[in-house]
Amino acid sequence: GDLMLLLEQNLEYELMYGRYTQELGAYAKEEAARLREDGALRRGGGVRSQTPEQLEYEKDPCAKCQRECVCRFLISRVGEDWIFLILLGLLMALVSWVMDYTIAFCQQAQKWMYGGLDSNMLLQYLAWVTYPVVLITFSAGFTQILAPQAVGSGIPEMKTILRGVVLKEYLTFKTFVAKVIGLTCALGSGMPLGKEGPFVHVASLCAALLSKFMALFGGIYLNELRNTEMLSAACAVGVGCCFAAPIGGVLFSIEVTSTFFAVRNYWRGFFAATFSAFIFRVLAVWNKDEETITALFKTRFRLDFPFDLQELPAFVVLGIASGFGGALFVYLNRLIVESMRKQKTINKFLLKKRLVYPALVTLLVSTLTFPPGFGQFMAGQLTQHESLVALFDNRTWYKQGVAEEFEYSGHPQAWKHPQVSVFITLLLFIVMKFWMSAVATTMPVPCGAFMPVFLIGAAFGRLVGESMAAVFPDGIHTDSTVYPIVPGGYAVVGAAALSGAVTHTVSTAVIVFELTGQISHILPVMIAVILANAVAQSLQPSLYDSIIRIQKLPYLPELGWGQEKYNIRVEDIMVREVRYITLSSTYRDLQEALLTGQLKTLALVESRDSMILLGSTERSQLQSLLSEQLGRGRRLEFLRERAQDNGTHVPSFSQDSSPKASRGVHFLISTEESSYSPTLTNSQIPLKSALKTVSSVSNTETLNSTYQNTYTILKPYSAPPHEHYPIQSLRYVWSRLSQCIAEWEEQQLDEAVNFNNCKIDPAPFQLVERTSLHKTHTIFSLLGLDHAYVTSTGRLVGVVSLKELRKAIEGSVTVTGVKVRPPLASFRDSGTSSSVSEVTELHKLWSRHKKMSEITKKMQNFQTSNNAKKTTSSYS
Amino acid sequence: GDLMLLLEQNLEYELMYGRYTQELGAYAKEEAARLREDGALRRGGGVRSQTPEQLEYEKDPCAKCQRECVCRFLISRVGEDWIFLILLGLLMALVSWVMDYTIAFCQQAQKWMYGGLDSNMLLQYLAWVTYPVVLITFSAGFTQILAPQAVGSGIPEMKTILRGVVLKEYLTFKTFVAKVIGLTCALGSGMPLGKEGPFVHVASLCAALLSKFMALFGGIYLNELRNTEMLSAACAVGVGCCFAAPIGGVLFSIEVTSTFFAVRNYWRGFFAATFSAFIFRVLAVWNKDEETITALFKTRFRLDFPFDLQELPAFVVLGIASGFGGALFVYLNRLIVESMRKQKTINKFLLKKRLVYPALVTLLVSTLTFPPGFGQFMAGQLTQHESLVALFDNRTWYKQGVAEEFEYSGHPQAWKHPQVSVFITLLLFIVMKFWMSAVATTMPVPCGAFMPVFLIGAAFGRLVGESMAAVFPDGIHTDSTVYPIVPGGYAVVGAAALSGAVTHTVSTAVIVFELTGQISHILPVMIAVILANAVAQSLQPSLYDSIIRIQKLPYLPELGWGQEKYNIRVEDIMVREVRYITLSSTYRDLQEALLTGQLKTLALVESRDSMILLGSTERSQLQSLLSEQLGRGRRLEFLRERAQDNGTHVPSFSQDSSPKASRGVHFLISTEESSYSPTLTNSQIPLKSALKTVSSVSNTETLNSTYQNTYTILKPYSAPPHEHYPIQSLRYVWSRLSQCIAEWEEQQLDEAVNFNNCKIDPAPFQLVERTSLHKTHTIFSLLGLDHAYVTSTGRLVGVVSLKELRKAIEGSVTVTGVKVRPPLASFRDSGTSSSVSEVTELHKLWSRHKKMSEITKKMQNFQTSNNAKKTTSSYS
Repeated sequence: GDLMLLLEQNLEYELMYGRYTQELGAYAKEEAARLREDGALRRGGGVRSQTPEQLEYEKDPCAKCQRECVCRFLISRVGEDWIFLILLGLLMALVSWVMDYTIAFCQQAQKWMYGGLDSNMLLQYLAWVTYPVVLITFSAGFTQILAPQAVGSGIPEMKTILRGVVLKEYLTFKTFVAKVIGLTCALGSGMPLGKEGPFVHVASLCAALLSKFMALFGGIYLNELRNTEMLSAACAVGVGCCFAAPIGGVLFSIEVTSTFFAVRNYWRGFFAATFSAFIFRVLAVWNKDEETITALFKTRFRLDFPFDLQELPAFVVLGIASGFGGALFVYLNRLIVESMRKQKTINKFLLKKRLVYPALVTLLVSTLTFPPGFGQFMAGQLTQHESLVALFDNRTWYKQGVAEEFEYSGHPQAWKHPQVSVFITLLLFIVMKFWMSAVATTMPVPCGAFMPVFLIGAAFGRLVGESMAAVFPDGIHTDSTVYPIVPGGYAVVGAAALSGAVTHTVSTAVIVFELTGQISHILPVMIAVILANAVAQSLQPSLYDSIIRIQKLPYLPELGWGQEKYNIRVEDIMVREVRYITLSSTYRDLQEALLTGQLKTLALVESRDSMILLGSTERSQLQSLLSEQLGRGRRLEFLRERAQDNGTHVPSFSQDSSPKASRGVHFLISTEESSYSPTLTNSQIPLKSALKTVSSVSNTETLNSTYQNTYTILKPYSAPPHEHYPIQSLRYVWSRLSQCIAEWEEQQLDEAVNFNNCKIDPAPFQLVERTSLHKTHTIFSLLGLDHAYVTSTGRLVGVVSLKELRKAIEGSVTVTGVKVRPPLASFRDSGTSSSVSEVTELHKLWSRHKKMSEITKKMQNFQTSNNAKKTTSSYS
Repeated sequence: GDLMLLLEQNLEYELMYGRYTQELGAYAKEEAARLREDGALRRGGGVRSQTPEQLEYEKDPCAKCQRECVCRFLISRVGEDWIFLILLGLLMALVSWVMDYTIAFCQQAQKWMYGGLDSNMLLQYLAWVTYPVVLITFSAGFTQILAPQAVGSGIPEMKTILRGVVLKEYLTFKTFVAKVIGLTCALGSGMPLGKEGPFVHVASLCAALLSKFMALFGGIYLNELRNTEMLSAACAVGVGCCFAAPIGGVLFSIEVTSTFFAVRNYWRGFFAATFSAFIFRVLAVWNKDEETITALFKTRFRLDFPFDLQELPAFVVLGIASGFGGALFVYLNRLIVESMRKQKTINKFLLKKRLVYPALVTLLVSTLTFPPGFGQFMAGQLTQHESLVALFDNRTWYKQGVAEEFEYSGHPQAWKHPQVSVFITLLLFIVMKFWMSAVATTMPVPCGAFMPVFLIGAAFGRLVGESMAAVFPDGIHTDSTVYPIVPGGYAVVGAAALSGAVTHTVSTAVIVFELTGQISHILPVMIAVILANAVAQSLQPSLYDSIIRIQKLPYLPELGWGQEKYNIRVEDIMVREVRYITLSSTYRDLQEALLTGQLKTLALVESRDSMILLGSTERSQLQSLLSEQLGRGRRLEFLRERAQDNGTHVPSFSQDSSPKASRGVHFLISTEESSYSPTLTNSQIPLKSALKTVSSVSNTETLNSTYQNTYTILKPYSAPPHEHYPIQSLRYVWSRLSQCIAEWEEQQLDEAVNFNNCKIDPAPFQLVERTSLHKTHTIFSLLGLDHAYVTSTGRLVGVVSLKELRKAIEGSVTVTGVKVRPPLASFRDSGTSSSVSEVTELHKLWSRHKKMSEITKKMQNFQTSNNAKKTTSSYS
């Protein structure tokens, strides 16, 4: 029924987008298990409280190594960072180059097959189509089996990781292998996919693995902050060595992954990216591909008069149109994903055959690009690289009249068609590639969308440029010299503008300069990119933010442009019912607090009256405290003591006594299963159920051992009454036992909590009620917070978590109650319809707040003289 | 004596570097005065406590406008930011263009004068020398008179302002006028000065003034955070429109002004800088200077083979040498300033004639560059712009043999000398310009050092390039085609590397691409810039940081490269004796707390025993509380009440009663002056003296009014005894009065403080003891903190301020007690010798800490079971 469907959808979801969301849940469970083990270990060792040193030890592995590795540190101190960055750059350059080489080889192989079979159209078609289908299917299957985390771009996840969220399994060696091989196959197939997003991920993987490797030689590689710094450098290296664009790479990676950027990391990024790009290009020279180090897509536009000032309106139009196009691309991409998810029948089918979807998409795309078929109208035989080289060509293709021949050989040849004008070819190319790219990037293979979008942008720019050339055959300039229009320049501008619009970045401008090796069009490029960004940002989130929303990754959206962010205050959005525990809390309070609320941490206040915030502690810490208090060890101890009070000796036993005594209790299982008291929870079962005080024991093995133990304990004083009716006697014993344990437990719950073993964060982040939304957002992004307590002169008055903040930002409201949205935002709503209810809620909050404040104001007019302690804030 | 000297040095200091340090002190005084006035106002109005609304009103001017300007907001909501940025860009482009035009005109005028007088060498020399001396002297004088803040670069101050420090008078209209006119004259003189630093300041001034102007139309312009955002965009605009380099401008301004950068400001910066650069270049086209928009220093290097891979070692050497050169430049600049300051005789002389120093420097420099004199060996007749154009020339000057003729006309002609080789000319140029620039930038005129350094770097690059061309006349490439070496490319690399080394930035690479309009040398440029940075950063601070140190601006240094930052913890550097007040403090405690300690704020804890931190409050707030408690109003009230108790009616009087009654107390002045009780402090005199309870009343006017008032009060019960001996009777009255007031004051001081009127920050920033230095530094820079309290489970245990942090960073120590310094740092020490004692102090601290921790460890081994509450931190 519904549940099944849900499960299926979940699976389908996972199939398409990895399983981070699920794993976040799984992570919590694992964490609980770990704590349990810790607990067992502690009990096993007989030491109930860890020494402070031990705790410190766990927290800071540096401290451990300090004494051991001082010498090693001193030796490697100066260069360690730099050695790391050089190694990272070298590694990534090698990876990038080998991948490029393999991809080029794959694409050549397809061409060769296709070329060799030109006698038979059908065979040719089969070869053209089968090859990519096989590669994509292999890529999807391989990734699925080895590491589903490798699917997709990787930039959204890196953005989340750099914000401080732990995505498990995301930076492992398995993922690295899956990503590299999957990406090579996917790109080798010639589908409209990019390698830039995945490269960011690959570089981060490299950095993480290299960190682990280098940790063998020193201690600082385990420092969390340092790892973040290195990851952000790695992102720069990824983009840098993908395009041989060190500067653009650094800037692009900053724009797509960071909200706040430490300038000292910038330096690291430049260093590593430059080294990487250098090696990447040097490899090409050594391989005799190039004579010397030059740009990847070198252009040869004239330098003296790159463009006329009067062409600027055309560039402006190009920029604005690219902005709309970029927003449309993001919208289309999300629409495809969401409609796929909603379609139940399709879902069911795709679920069974996980590789059918990519195969089908590949089949469709490659059929349409089949050169003798429809492909002839859209330069189908060219690879992405060849298409780009052709589009950036500095010659004008269109010359007076549709039928006139191109005189050029090489790649531009492919754009020529005897019957159709070059405008039609370009237009078809743009339209077809547009939806193809949007569909192809939803396939569950490692792939990015940057390069396809870049290509479409270049084609669109070329189209505008050729049109301009057709309208002004002798250029616009009116002076003596004739400067014809350069359509290639328009292609460069279009490429930067469209990719900038899709990713919401300005640094694509720098990337095109580095890719083409020419910077003469800087002003048109900058103007177009900025306009495209302005339009796209007001219509849609960036592609990466869109994926973050689809995948429901924990991330904080950016603030809008309005000024309402200065007027909303923390007191308007905070949750006033904070779960807290006090220093004098009993275990019963703990239990109650744990059963309600959702935040990962609980506040610790001095007392219920003063509400002075002392610190916060993790939920899991309290759970382990509670489970220890009610746990097996103490229970057994209690029973033993009780037994001893009864004057009988109980033999000490250990956990491993179950096998030898299991025979003795076999007969109990069938009859007594229903009468287990709820207090028979064992510390071995998950903590959650221990908290709920509902017995959900299902493991016979565990049961056996429990029984046997209990039996042994109770034997002394359960033996006398009915020696010959074991079942009856045991029933009696059981009921007495359960009663007695229940009493004990109640008594235990009423004890005051012993916080000795509890890790308490003594300085959780605090805000005041009057802190503005803008400042709160800044602080949350700066420090990567998950939640912050709102205090007023030390008293805890509320809590703000990411959730509340996200709600407040997404449904930003002004003081007048009118929702402020970025210009042209109506288009955007269709994608975020789910947040409407939240907005309404916020509206209610606001109107209530307004009413309240009016009442307060009236009150104040009456009694101005009688104010309580007036507190103001440095934050507001 | 010594004091005079100190004062003189102070003045000298002020003359050279503005007077920010002094003004910081003055600011505190003004603040105190303001608070006093506030207090007077409050008392005057008869309302002792402000209503919460009023307080809110003061804090948040937005709230005031909200109701009034909602309509205006709604209209201008969408575009306000963008309108601001466009206006800023437009304004700066106009300012930049007009200045450039004027500067070019001035330089042309000098050439014209020089050229017209070629009949008489002496006249020619006089004209050549007088012109710059007059201009520089005018510039220095004008700036000195109008706004001494306009002196110097402006980037160090902007860096400080963006960190959140208020530098008064720094962003006023007067400063704007002084900076623009002073800079135009200084650059028009042809001295080796730059305009890029001052432009950052001018742009910030524009932004601040524009903000004030636009605040007339809306409210958000008064928001502090928003202003910071706009200022950081303005810095980008400044660099961007100075070099017509929008991308490089944004990056450069980020690197030199920020520690942490919000990516959303990046966008703003790009927008404004692009618009500004665009308008700047369009103005040139409209003025028919250019045919279309191109780069400022357009180069024409070949595109197909920009450089050979085997030339890279030469670029590497160039980069490393530039690094050393850059460090030397910074060192030399600081050395000149410091030696000037130390030389007492020079100082005294310069102090009297403030304009002598710049005039002398100008005279020296222009004498040396006189073209028919020594200038012929160093291309003395070329302006900076012409020199750069010549140095970036794509032709090779040196061709087989010293005596061979250049065949070129134009600027390169100036480098040719019949007797000397071009190498000698270049070398002389480099050496002479090096010290000239270092000296010239210490003149008290608005000037930057970027452009001179850039020029020297270009010359150095050219020198290396020409040498390479001499060694490899047919290029290094061994294949069929001959690709001669392009010395112009080396000039570009050298310029980027040296300016990068001096400013510690990587973005100079981007600036040269935008300046030259060619990006083909990207890899050599990047490599050289990075190497130059690596060398320079390990030797010296950046030029801007050096100026910050010289001017003693409040700024936090960057963290070094070592990993000791992870090992030092807050508990090692914090101050344990925190000044605090408790909720039950008396005014006496307040007085004591205020008389000791230096921090601007005092901690408010619950009680002396619990030490739970409730908040912090500003020193000035407490001062006003105290002065109010002991102030005139309450004293008079007390006396009046007392008088009433005695059964006599005292007429109510107001402050303005002094004139009419002043006659009656005239005779008192001569006799009674010495017997004023120390308690006769008046709330009108400065608070500091009120606190010290020492009467320092010197204002007769005030005295009169006090006397007269006292007289009036005491009349009723001082009248009976000796009607005919007013002096005797008054003496008696005085002694009684002083005794009575002293009693009253003692009694007042023992009262518990009433915090009702005190602004308390209810959530001061808190750290924990185990927070690492690295994290502390990050948080301080991120949030622009001045100090943070160290708490442990709510208890206040210490405080860390910028001072402690700066000490810890500058004398970073490892756990082993060995000072860790960046490689090659010995050179650097000579500049920071003053911090040696601080380092020793820290050493002591460390060894004590180590000993302590060893003892603690031993103790713990004995009593592992008996630990108190174990607290761990989320920060460490």
